[in-house]
Amino acid sequence: VQAPHLTGFVFRLFVRILELPLIGPMILKKQNKILQHTVIPEEPMFKPEYPQETEPGVVVLEEDGRPEDRVVSALKCLPHYDAFRYWKIRDYAHAYRSTPSLVAEHIISIIEEPPIPLLISFVAEEVREQAAASTQRFEAGNPLSILDGIFMAIKDDIDCYPHPSKGASTWMHEVRTVKKDAVCVSRLRSCGVIFVGKANMHELGMGTTGNNPNYGTARNPHAPDRYTGGSSSGPAAIVASGICSAALGTDGGGSIRIPSSLCGVVGLKTTYGRTSMEGSLCDSGTVEIIGPIASSVEDVMLVYAAMLGASPANRISLRPLPTLSSLGFLRIGKYTPWFNDVHSTEISDKCEDALNLLEIVIPELLEMRTAHVVSIGSEKLAYDTRTSLALFRSFTAADYVAAQCIRRRNMYYHMEIFKKVDVIVTPTTGMTAPRIPPSALKSGETDMQTTANLMQFVVPANLLGLPAISVPVGYDKEGLPIGLQIMGGPWAEATILRVASEVEKLKKPASYYDVL
Amino acid sequence: VQAPHLTGFVFRLFVRILELPLIGPMILKKQNKILQHTVIPEEPMFKPEYPQETEPGVVVLEEDGRPEDRVVSALKCLPHYDAFRYWKIRDYAHAYRSTPSLVAEHIISIIEEPPIPLLISFVAEEVREQAAASTQRFEAGNPLSILDGIFMAIKDDIDCYPHPSKGASTWMHEVRTVKKDAVCVSRLRSCGVIFVGKANMHELGMGTTGNNPNYGTARNPHAPDRYTGGSSSGPAAIVASGICSAALGTDGGGSIRIPSSLCGVVGLKTTYGRTSMEGSLCDSGTVEIIGPIASSVEDVMLVYAAMLGASPANRISLRPLPTLSSLGFLRIGKYTPWFNDVHSTEISDKCEDALNLLEIVIPELLEMRTAHVVSIGSEKLAYDTRTSLALFRSFTAADYVAAQCIRRRNMYYHMEIFKKVDVIVTPTTGMTAPRIPPSALKSGETDMQTTANLMQFVVPANLLGLPAISVPVGYDKEGLPIGLQIMGGPWAEATILRVASEVEKLKKPASYYDVL
Repeated sequence: VQAPHLTGFVFRLFVRILELPLIGPMILKKQNKILQHTVIPEEPMFKPEYPQETEPGVVVLEEDGRPEDRVVSALKCLPHYDAFRYWKIRDYAHAYRSTPSLVAEHIISIIEEPPIPLLISFVAEEVREQAAASTQRFEAGNPLSILDGIFMAIKDDIDCYPHPSKGASTWMHEVRTVKKDAVCVSRLRSCGVIFVGKANMHELGMGTTGNNPNYGTARNPHAPDRYTGGSSSGPAAIVASGICSAALGTDGGGSIRIPSSLCGVVGLKTTYGRTSMEGSLCDSGTVEIIGPIASSVEDVMLVYAAMLGASPANRISLRPLPTLSSLGFLRIGKYTPWFNDVHSTEISDKCEDALNLLEIVIPELLEMRTAHVVSIGSEKLAYDTRTSLALFRSFTAADYVAAQCIRRRNMYYHMEIFKKVDVIVTPTTGMTAPRIPPSALKSGETDMQTTANLMQFVVPANLLGLPAISVPVGYDKEGLPIGLQIMGGPWAEATILRVASEVEKLKKPASYYDVL
Repeated sequence: VQAPHLTGFVFRLFVRILELPLIGPMILKKQNKILQHTVIPEEPMFKPEYPQETEPGVVVLEEDGRPEDRVVSALKCLPHYDAFRYWKIRDYAHAYRSTPSLVAEHIISIIEEPPIPLLISFVAEEVREQAAASTQRFEAGNPLSILDGIFMAIKDDIDCYPHPSKGASTWMHEVRTVKKDAVCVSRLRSCGVIFVGKANMHELGMGTTGNNPNYGTARNPHAPDRYTGGSSSGPAAIVASGICSAALGTDGGGSIRIPSSLCGVVGLKTTYGRTSMEGSLCDSGTVEIIGPIASSVEDVMLVYAAMLGASPANRISLRPLPTLSSLGFLRIGKYTPWFNDVHSTEISDKCEDALNLLEIVIPELLEMRTAHVVSIGSEKLAYDTRTSLALFRSFTAADYVAAQCIRRRNMYYHMEIFKKVDVIVTPTTGMTAPRIPPSALKSGETDMQTTANLMQFVVPANLLGLPAISVPVGYDKEGLPIGLQIMGGPWAEATILRVASEVEKLKKPASYYDVL
């Protein structure tokens, strides 16, 4: 990627030049050469289409059923509640006294003294009302589900009544009114979830850092001088800060996985079509989905179970079958010194070769990236915004169709790969959280190299609609979180959740009991 | 140490030989040469006597006040309740529904399906009654203190009504009846603590492994084929297993610190005289104390605050002043590559020298060990038991007085050291949890080398009555816990708790909020 890194005044000037009628397109046209010089015999595939196969050993969830019932099914898939931790005396003391209203007061006091701009829309009294209703349900012994009294934030491009949906822009709420919850949000609400408000994001999702000059840039909880990643910056940061158990984000080009990776939390990009996009700003795209962010795989799974359910149109065309499988069984162990301790290295070499068969080849990564940017860009033209949109505006209709042909060809390649393997693993991002240049806080920045590093591994899941999850695997030398991406075949959320839960396991004593 | 490692039949035979009237003493007499060949000009010091100095910057606790009030003072010394951890949805769900009665049922079901012999005396109905009373107090909005509804186990040599105190022997309860709680236990009970029963131990505290042929040997929760360490084997294991928040143990020769170190939990040996020994089997010793074991320094501090208070006699003779200081301020940081990155190494060498002044010399470690074994042994002669007692019986009155002279001389040495430093740090034990030889389960074992390794660093705190705490600092290559011992001057519990709380700190994001 060759592109200037601009912030501040120079960046504002560059945006204005790009937006000029003749000069802008001339600068940008060079970017699209890849598509125009590629011969693509395939028919275009305008949105992901999948072969239909049910995985073995899974529990099927009722898409039409009550979300509360799906959560009960998900709970049954969780291992015994025994994540290793010694409960302290203060933990017991709090548990014995805890109510949703009490937790709400803690959250309100944190948010009203804001160290970082996590929420764009927040009304304390509205949170108190939801918490009081939940507290009453507990007092009456009738909580709605395990999600009752759980606090969540909703990304600002998903409707959550009575808040406006601005998409972190300054104008969207003036042209689009919110009258009810998005479908996903209403399913969570019926489980008793308490919504704290609308979480910050990169304006209209058009960036991967989370930079936001309109409402302030959310800071990475692991290093306040660094980006959270984006575009779901607020959802990832509010979970990584411990304020909310979970949040909903959208992911059209890594926007759930990138900030989850950079903030050290778990983020699930669902299969395209798995969740209803009704009531979100990106309801007409073919690469975007809504998915959960939480601090653990099990919480991602509980929220996922509650919110899933395709739109009526996708139920007919895509026939999604939602499934889950029990967490915590699958594991491959290899102890290299022992493995290699053989009479003849021929033995260990052959065995090593067998394991290396897990290594796969993914063709046309560059073409997929281009097809993705053309697809998301052309579809985003419904909005009129700047910077990235200036690039998108330079795409022709022919570019768009060529991108859809690449999409079909790569769907074939991936279906071949998924005959050999269940999941494809990569790092989630090519870099950990980048520093925020002070000049970038006021008017944003463009840094295509950073964007390329952040998006290095996320695109195939968007272009092909595949489910993928980012799960924390440790820290770099500077103490910044590193995420592992696990991508599955179509509808294979059950499998990637199961693999992710193995990845996140902690060391614990052989005999440990949880009694709280 | 040169002594045979014996288990099973050979060990039983050896015990019988040692107990023979003439041959036994002949074998054992050689052990006492050290005392008889040492010239000791000092007067004997029959129990620890300390200079009186109050540390700066501490909060004074009322020894005569209500334990509940002391717990409130201790709570104020704790840092903000924000130990790093992401609360999961299931954590919230449990907290909203949690009551002491619910926790009691979990504990009862774990204990009644016993994988390891943790408790010697346990009555499910009695635990249920305590829990129901606590639940009622919470429902009425009147919990007694932050310790209300907290589950604790009490070592079997400390009275906890209505349980018998057997000291893990088969006969003690037949000659000594329990009519009420020990003073320490009654103080905890008035704070609302729920007692689950009497915890396993090395018989009469006469061993450091926790081996117990009478009631079964408690297993190390980190490795069930290994010892917990002892003699407070049950208290350390029940905390390390997550079943109880805390436990009380006794420490006459490392009996709190050794199992805490081997089981990866925190154990506090209080200053001699700090806590009342009334109602314990070792109420006439001059090296034993009662102290708390918990999974964190803050929990040790809360239990310590509740249980402390000297006996009327010690208040007059020793004038203890109980204090606490805020946890979480004191910290020395050194980054060696930076520290050493200087123009001339002379600078870093000089600075290094200054830090090395922290290095101290402790004389007469061998003499102290001998004086300790003679003191604890001679005082234990009140009981008639076997093995170790056969050794103790060989001590003469002259040996005993010589030991008390060594005690005075070493108290002087240590008071000089504590003019230079606030705490003395060592590993808690010279080895991690030893394996249990299968043959040792039925009739015990004697392995003086293991005993020596386990007791390597614990003795001065007992002989001189000094407070010392063991705090986990990590794991060895086999995944077994390693403890660091921090020993302070007389009455300096406040200081060692503060240092220990720094040692146990975990990595957490720079901005993290706890809202539960």
